[in-house]
Order: sequence, then structure tokens, then C-alpha cells
Amino acid sequence: MDWQLPENLSTPALVVDHDVLVANVARMAARMQERGVALRPHAKTHKSLDVAALQREHGAVGLTVATVGEAEVFAAGGHDDLFIAYPVIAQRDKADRLARLAGSLRLSVGVDSLDAAELLAAAGLAGRAAVMIEVDTGQHRSGVLPEAAGPLAEAVADLGLEVEGVFTHGGHGYWTPDAPAGAARDEVERLGQAVEALAGRGLDAVRVSAGSSPTVLGSAMRPVTEERPGTYVFNDRQQVRLGAADPGQVALVVAATVVSTAVPGQVVIDAGSKSLGSDRPAWLEGFGTVPELDGAVVASMSECHGIVAIGDRTPPAVGTMVRVVPNHVCPVVNLFDTYDVASGGDVVARWPVSARGHLA
Amino acid sequence: MDWQLPENLSTPALVVDHDVLVANVARMAARMQERGVALRPHAKTHKSLDVAALQREHGAVGLTVATVGEAEVFAAGGHDDLFIAYPVIAQRDKADRLARLAGSLRLSVGVDSLDAAELLAAAGLAGRAAVMIEVDTGQHRSGVLPEAAGPLAEAVADLGLEVEGVFTHGGHGYWTPDAPAGAARDEVERLGQAVEALAGRGLDAVRVSAGSSPTVLGSAMRPVTEERPGTYVFNDRQQVRLGAADPGQVALVVAATVVSTAVPGQVVIDAGSKSLGSDRPAWLEGFGTVPELDGAVVASMSECHGIVAIGDRTPPAVGTMVRVVPNHVCPVVNLFDTYDVASGGDVVARWPVSARGHLA
Repeated sequence: MDWQLPENLSTPALVVDHDVLVANVARMAARMQERGVALRPHAKTHKSLDVAALQREHGAVGLTVATVGEAEVFAAGGHDDLFIAYPVIAQRDKADRLARLAGSLRLSVGVDSLDAAELLAAAGLAGRAAVMIEVDTGQHRSGVLPEAAGPLAEAVADLGLEVEGVFTHGGHGYWTPDAPAGAARDEVERLGQAVEALAGRGLDAVRVSAGSSPTVLGSAMRPVTEERPGTYVFNDRQQVRLGAADPGQVALVVAATVVSTAVPGQVVIDAGSKSLGSDRPAWLEGFGTVPELDGAVVASMSECHGIVAIGDRTPPAVGTMVRVVPNHVCPVVNLFDTYDVASGGDVVARWPVSARGHLA
Repeated sequence: MDWQLPENLSTPALVVDHDVLVANVARMAARMQERGVALRPHAKTHKSLDVAALQREHGAVGLTVATVGEAEVFAAGGHDDLFIAYPVIAQRDKADRLARLAGSLRLSVGVDSLDAAELLAAAGLAGRAAVMIEVDTGQHRSGVLPEAAGPLAEAVADLGLEVEGVFTHGGHGYWTPDAPAGAARDEVERLGQAVEALAGRGLDAVRVSAGSSPTVLGSAMRPVTEERPGTYVFNDRQQVRLGAADPGQVALVVAATVVSTAVPGQVVIDAGSKSLGSDRPAWLEGFGTVPELDGAVVASMSECHGIVAIGDRTPPAVGTMVRVVPNHVCPVVNLFDTYDVASGGDVVARWPVSARGHLA
């Protein structure tokens, strides 16, 4: 990570380097264009109208979001093609909110049960929103097995809903550092089986959507027509360890200040779990790394304390500013209201995290 | 947990039962009054002007906060006695912000290094804010050892700063389910040693502040003059397991909706790590419990997916609303903008999480 941290930050701060960000956005767009696959990036990572605008400028066909609330924020920001890649439940307030969204833009939503499809139909979404059948390609989180996609799609179509295709998230690419390649193969193979299952019921999957940042390059091949990576815009410690990014492609850090060196062998910084989140895959030690401290690890945290284990190294002075490369950037961004956008070591803009929260 | 969840919520939602909350606030206030110890509750848990008002009505002498930003929110809300129980670094923008706070209310701040004290003096806080020397009583996070408190306090006083006393957080009371009693004893014993260390330098610790919800009852004795519990207002799975609360005293849940039952043996709810946080002590399995599913555990999470392991039980229908009792309520509250305040199964108010974020 070569880019320079601005000096005059109020820590903890969410700092993104504009030049690295733009390079990441452009690189992914070029790769997907080479492969002839549509790029519909997941906006849950950045929750930012500014980053989304960059992605559209570089040819993204639309955005992916996780919640109705996120869809509303990006709709209000002028985005007209949104996919809620989630088992959407059109119930209570969400029935009306989904109907309003469907009336104002091209909306597609995920479905993995007939119950959920019936709620969509009851909310009046037939003919107004497209349904994507969620397929479990190995993560075993949500989604039906490939062979069950045909019968479900047929039943959904019988409700008068438009079935546009199938989608998956090869999230099992995060399970171990060498998992991405296999998960990408699973996405392609099992989405292919799901496409056949739909064809067996006379349904054409015109959109076949896969994706995660670690698997995106491996799964961008037939029958996949669309990829939905999110984290690639910023990258993080996890992406680097998974081989999905080089250290020089990490565009985001949490800037923190050393607040205590009273306990030997450690340094306390003002970024704890309320700034860094507590996500930690079993194959990573600690909650982030600190380049200024030779890559020392945030070994434990309280809400506003990060405990960096420095062994017998000399601690930096209290007041020193350091960078933390977080394990997983998506929940980190969601903890802040604003990005400090850096370029050449200066803060050149402050961008709101427009869809921070908006979980419902 | 007997209180009733309102029906018409937009999930995931942060729901607090008003009656249980008021009972929790009143009970702690009465206990501290019995012991003749001042209650200065930690507002980082609730970040709410409404909850803080309840605490003041029940006799809290002031509030504890973790950050300058939190102090500003509670100051703007009319609170006039705030303790930033943190190793405060009066640097960059924070020097001016602290000086403004000190000019408008009774401010006390934590210090565990001479470097930090020198920054406070340089920011003009001598004679305007009180310093509390942080003592490490066993958590080994920040704070000096009891015997080092005397020399540090003397050096701080020599800078012209007012040393009001000593404080600690017996956070090692969270390390195992049977840790609270020992941690409470450590707080009392080692704060006593620190008081003596100050006396040896001719300094009188008029304020001796301890506290965490699990240790508060055990440490509310001489020489402790003040307690700073936070979590007791809502309680959570961790407090119950630590013996600090009965299940009936849990005032807060995350309301969630079942969104997928496609994978056998599990139920997916719409509360994941962006609603529940990822905090998990080694002695708790999973990330929360679901009373509606016989106490089944949120075994794993994605950002907007909670995977509840139900074994061979029959899954509830997609669309069913359930409650989740989170492991640790403080980071959970910080993920939401609003509380749905319930009473008798109805939403009777919506309270803003006024100091959500405000990390810097």
C-alpha cells in the first residue's frame, strides 16, 4: 500500500484513496468487458452514491443491493436498474415500498421459496418486477438446489411473475484461502444445472448471475451473463489473503491514533470494534493489520480500543497516527457516516456513506 | 423475557421494551443509592438522549462517554457533567473541541500517559477540565499499574492540570462466566492501592471510579465513590450468562423475519452481522439466541443473513417474525438509527440513537 495518509484527520476515520479506488473500478470493468459479461456491482460494500456513479461511468449495467432500504437510497440517487439479490419478503411496510420501487425503475428481486413469491404477487409485483431464482451452489446459506430451481421457477411463473433467470453467491469462496477457485467452478457448474432445470420446464434463463470478489474472475464464463462483486472497489486484508487483490490495490484504511502504550508489548489505538467490526474468518489472526507497525495485528478489541500486539518492538509515541487494513471492509464502511477521500496525501473530498444502515 | 414484540415492525428492527428498561434503570439507581456510591452510567451503550434523561431522572450524577463526539452529542442535549473515560488525546481537531466542551460544562477526562497530559495542557484545559488517572486493575488494556498512578498524577498536577482521582474498568470480568466477582475485587483492591500511591505524593483522590455491568455490585464499596455501568439498561445474552441479569431483565431485542428455509436444518433471518454485530466471547456459542425457536442459536452470519441452527425441528414459515437476543448489545445499538420503543406489545415511541457513530 503506497498511498499516503492525509495528516489532518479526526480519528478514527474511514479513508479511501481516490486513485486506487478508480483503478480498481476501471480494472474490474475492463475484465468483465473482455469476457463479455455484464457487471452489476454490489453496492452493499460502499453504500455510496459517489462510488456507484464511478461504477456506472465505467459501464456497470446497474447495481446490486441487499435490502429494500438500500434500493430506496440508490433509487433516490437516480439509479434506474437495481437488483435486490436477497430472498425478499414483501410483507408489512415492505410490500408497499417494493411496489413503489417497481413503479419507478427496473427492479429485480431474489426468490428461493414459493411463500416469498406469493407475497410478491400479493404486493402487485407481477409484470412490474423481475424475479431471479436463488440457487445454492455450495455456500448452503439460502437458495434452492439446482435441480429444484426448475419446479420453483415454474410455480413462480404460474403466479404471473416474470422469471428472468437464476443467481447465486459463491460465498464458500471465503471459507479457506484456497477456496475461491473451487467456489467459482461450483457457481458456473451449478448455475448451468439450474439453467437446464428451467429449460426442462420451458423457461429461458436470460440472466444468469454469479459473483463475489474472490470468485468473479473464475466464474465469468458461460452460462454466466452477469457478475456482482462488491469488495473489489476497496479490497481488504481478506481479499489479499484470498489472492483476489494485491496489497497495492487496497484503497481503504481506517486511520487511528495511538492512545495508550501503558501496557508492555502492546499499543492501544482509538479504532476498536465500533470502527473495525469484529469479522474474523478462522484463517486470519486478529482484526486487521497496521502497516506503520510492521504489519502488527489488532489482536483484540473493545468498542473504542484496538489492542495491537507489538511484541518487544519499541512502541510509537502516544498521538502517532497509523493505518489499519481491516479484515472485511463492508461492515467497516457501514460503521461510518463519511469517507475522507484522499489523493496525493490530501483530503480532496468528503463523501457520505449514503446508505449506511438502511438495513430494513 | 415476557414482554411482547409489536407486530407491525420493519425488520431488522431494534426494539426496546419501555417497562423493562425503566425497571432496569430504577433498580441500578436504587442499588447505588443504598451503597452511597454515585452512579455515572456509560452512555456508549444506548447513545440515546431519551435513555440518558431517564438515568438522570433516577439520580445519575452525570454521564460517562467514550469519545469526544459522544460528549458533544450529550452536551448538545443539555447534559452538563460528562466524563470521557478514555485515554483522551487532545490533538488536531480534538484540542479545540475539548476546549469548547470544557468551557460549557463540567468535563473530566482519562489520562494514562504524561504525553497525553501534555497535550491536554497545551490545549488549554488546565483549570477547565478535571483529569482522572486510569489504572489497570487486571484487564491489561490501558491504564497504569496502581503504584505508577502516584508519579503520573504528580507529573500531571505539575502541568497545572487538576487531578480529581483515579478510574478503572474491570473488563476482565468478561473473560469467563465466573470472572465478575474476582474482577470486582481487583477493581476495589487496586484502586485502593492507586489512592494510596496518590496520597504518597500528597494528592487526594476525591473521585474513585470503577465499573462495568458485571462488576458493579461487587465493586461498589470503599474506596470506590462512583460506578459507571452501561449495559445494565438493556442487558443481553452475555450479561445473563455472567449472572449480571436475569432473562426477564433483557429489555432489548433485534426483531427479524425468517427469509429462507431452503437449506435443511437451518432458518435464515434478515438480521446478520450488520444488525447483530460479530462480537462473540470464547465462552458463548454463536451470535445470539432466538426465543421463538426454543433458544436456537444464530450459528453464523453474513452481513444481512443470520443462520439459525434448528437441527431437526420444523422450520417456521417464511415471513415469521422472531426476536434475537444479541450477545453484546452496545455494538448492536450502534448499528441502528432508531429504537422502536414497545410497551404492552405496541410501539409507543421511536427514539433516535442520537450518538450513533460519533466515534472520533
